[in-house]
Amino acid sequence: MNLNINILRKKYIDKIISIEDVLTSIKKKIKETKDHNIWIYTLSDKDLEPYIKNLENQDPKDLPLYGIPFAIKDNIDLINIPTTAACKEYEYIAKESAYVVNELIKAGAIPIGKTNLDQFATGLVGTRSPYGECKNSINPEYISGGSSSGSAVSVALEMASFSLGTDTAGSGRVPAAFNNLIGLKATKGVISTSGVVPACRSLDCVTIFTKTLEEVQAVFKVANSYDEKDIYSRKYISSCEEARNDFTFAIPKKEDLKFFGDKEAQKLFYEAVEKFESLGGKSVEIDYEPFNESANLLYSGPWVTERFIAIKDAITKTPEIINETVRAIISGGDKIDAINYFESEYTLKKNRKIMDKIFAKYDFMLTPTTGTIYKIKEVNADPIALNTNLGYYTNFMNLLDLSAIAVPAGFRKNGLPFGVTIVADNFEEEKLISYSSKYLGV
Amino acid sequence: MNLNINILRKKYIDKIISIEDVLTSIKKKIKETKDHNIWIYTLSDKDLEPYIKNLENQDPKDLPLYGIPFAIKDNIDLINIPTTAACKEYEYIAKESAYVVNELIKAGAIPIGKTNLDQFATGLVGTRSPYGECKNSINPEYISGGSSSGSAVSVALEMASFSLGTDTAGSGRVPAAFNNLIGLKATKGVISTSGVVPACRSLDCVTIFTKTLEEVQAVFKVANSYDEKDIYSRKYISSCEEARNDFTFAIPKKEDLKFFGDKEAQKLFYEAVEKFESLGGKSVEIDYEPFNESANLLYSGPWVTERFIAIKDAITKTPEIINETVRAIISGGDKIDAINYFESEYTLKKNRKIMDKIFAKYDFMLTPTTGTIYKIKEVNADPIALNTNLGYYTNFMNLLDLSAIAVPAGFRKNGLPFGVTIVADNFEEEKLISYSSKYLGV
Repeated sequence: MNLNINILRKKYIDKIISIEDVLTSIKKKIKETKDHNIWIYTLSDKDLEPYIKNLENQDPKDLPLYGIPFAIKDNIDLINIPTTAACKEYEYIAKESAYVVNELIKAGAIPIGKTNLDQFATGLVGTRSPYGECKNSINPEYISGGSSSGSAVSVALEMASFSLGTDTAGSGRVPAAFNNLIGLKATKGVISTSGVVPACRSLDCVTIFTKTLEEVQAVFKVANSYDEKDIYSRKYISSCEEARNDFTFAIPKKEDLKFFGDKEAQKLFYEAVEKFESLGGKSVEIDYEPFNESANLLYSGPWVTERFIAIKDAITKTPEIINETVRAIISGGDKIDAINYFESEYTLKKNRKIMDKIFAKYDFMLTPTTGTIYKIKEVNADPIALNTNLGYYTNFMNLLDLSAIAVPAGFRKNGLPFGVTIVADNFEEEKLISYSSKYLGV
Repeated sequence: MNLNINILRKKYIDKIISIEDVLTSIKKKIKETKDHNIWIYTLSDKDLEPYIKNLENQDPKDLPLYGIPFAIKDNIDLINIPTTAACKEYEYIAKESAYVVNELIKAGAIPIGKTNLDQFATGLVGTRSPYGECKNSINPEYISGGSSSGSAVSVALEMASFSLGTDTAGSGRVPAAFNNLIGLKATKGVISTSGVVPACRSLDCVTIFTKTLEEVQAVFKVANSYDEKDIYSRKYISSCEEARNDFTFAIPKKEDLKFFGDKEAQKLFYEAVEKFESLGGKSVEIDYEPFNESANLLYSGPWVTERFIAIKDAITKTPEIINETVRAIISGGDKIDAINYFESEYTLKKNRKIMDKIFAKYDFMLTPTTGTIYKIKEVNADPIALNTNLGYYTNFMNLLDLSAIAVPAGFRKNGLPFGVTIVADNFEEEKLISYSSKYLGV
């Protein structure tokens, strides 16, 4: 079944389908795609009951997401349902739903289940989970991307109209690229993280996966809601900036672009550049070093300490319950000193000043979302180095307080999708969406 | 000589006085007040030459600070003049002036000299300096307040129309209170700190001391200039908010107000409250704990690490050159871990959310600038504890990203001044000045 929000919405309004029809189709799909290891928990009929009941006396016209099925990454709480963060021993039953989940439910959306992820949202691969390696929606030999692996694949394989992921290092963009989806990583703090298991609390974002741009807009409109209980929440200030017909965009200079031998990805990236040029854009090569220098801090400095704080009890008392690769990354987080923190902050502040100039001068920056994609067995053979490659265009984003949208950008000959990311300053989501629309021709 | 900016300005325009007249009067005063230990360096006639020469063909009307003498705290660079930060062995000759000093000179101001301070801007007392204890301008048995001790006293004793201080923990407010001055600690980042010896780089502010409110406005207008080379600089966004005739202001609740036995200070504070009430204000007692909890982080956690970073070479290689008390405070800054940093950040973010609510609800907060004042010999006998008392109303300010102005609020029977501080959210300087104007009746 086509789960496009607007199509479903029209059908609900016209009474062509019922919520039960939609759920039946989804349940069937869930069974069929079991081998993909998408879900950690799917809601039973009993679990679903209250959500359906709540909509009974509602007019579909009154609720923007009436009867829209969505998937929730399993580091985001859904009331009365277990949250695991892909660590079986960490499991707890959520006493209330995350703030953003509540907002979506209030708008009529129906939670389908909790999705698989790289444990504690640490990874860009989708293989670091005791619930199985989440397989790519197009070719199951390949990784789905992570850490929001199940959330992306659940949308790609039509078990949810949209899904929630989280994104600290790239987890809301990489799986979008690998499954031909839109992945919106809005400005830090504009989607609440109350009720989200922290990965790196000062950087974590909740993200949205959809198949189309208009769907991501519809969901963002609901999800973007100020939460005064979230210490990192920020009030949304709309830039109200639309794409221009004559614009300039930055791309990393040739020597800085890395495709890790993936010539097809390289070709597809330059095709995206050309497409933007054909739409009135002028590309200008810029020095990528400020981005790269910032990105390198994410796993080499104090933000590893934040990951340590997030799972302090587990990693100190029962380290054996933690995925081996995740443990290797996070352990040692307690050995980093405050000197390292401040020196890293000074580097970021210096680079943030460069961002001010770049985003004052250029309408946006265009990068590949990832330089390449890997097979599951390749990642298993070299889990840390290949993961690092996948973060080359994503790791700096939250450290530099930027907003980004990952959009599909064609396919390799073997059918695997490629994606690009449009990057703008914080609070420039509207501009991102507007340029995405131009690019996608929608 | 009355060095009031407007009076001097009028006299320059009317050609009643010359720059030489002003400098002659100041030189005389400098000699007379030698025992106060105000200056670390005063400019010689030769040093002054270029500044006077630069003004020769200028019309006083064209420059807002034409011929206005000012003092510079000796942790702020002035080209070709030594900077010591009150550590003789740390001395270097500045290759260029600090950004803000340059802005003031471009506006016509004339630097008189570099002023004494608590070494490395660490202290609120004015006694921690190898250049002697800086004495209070009203009663030399008492402390001048610090760390911007000499800057405050140089204005109080009419050797400068205004002066630059710095303020990390309260250094731009405490000496204002102790010398009956205005001390403006604007929003972090709106006055550049390029060319300032860092104390706590992420928190340091440059501040302004004057005798009157209109002078502080005139200087702030010039000093508030975006410096793209300062990684912490922020573009000024004017709130354009004027004092209202009917307003509500917060005061710490009675149990939270500390005067350390200084009954006269307590009386003067409540008189200030009453005065604001007589002007249309309604005072509301609030819980001071979020301020206090934040303040306590300044010397117990990672910001000590920042102080350590600032003088790393000296404290590790030649600790003996550092003032004993300053050394006691800063050593150990390298033993603090990044866990401590992030846990402190979470506390501050939590309290910052409380600030959002307080400053949305109340027009401002009123506190004593300090609860009491001490004699120099009292501070020497117990240098850390008494200093801590002086920071009770000031230490939270930069950690919580607030703006503040210290204003005179009467005198004790022994002639020593008392001061209150008006606190507002960041970028609310105009409101601070407007309520100060109402209070001072100017």
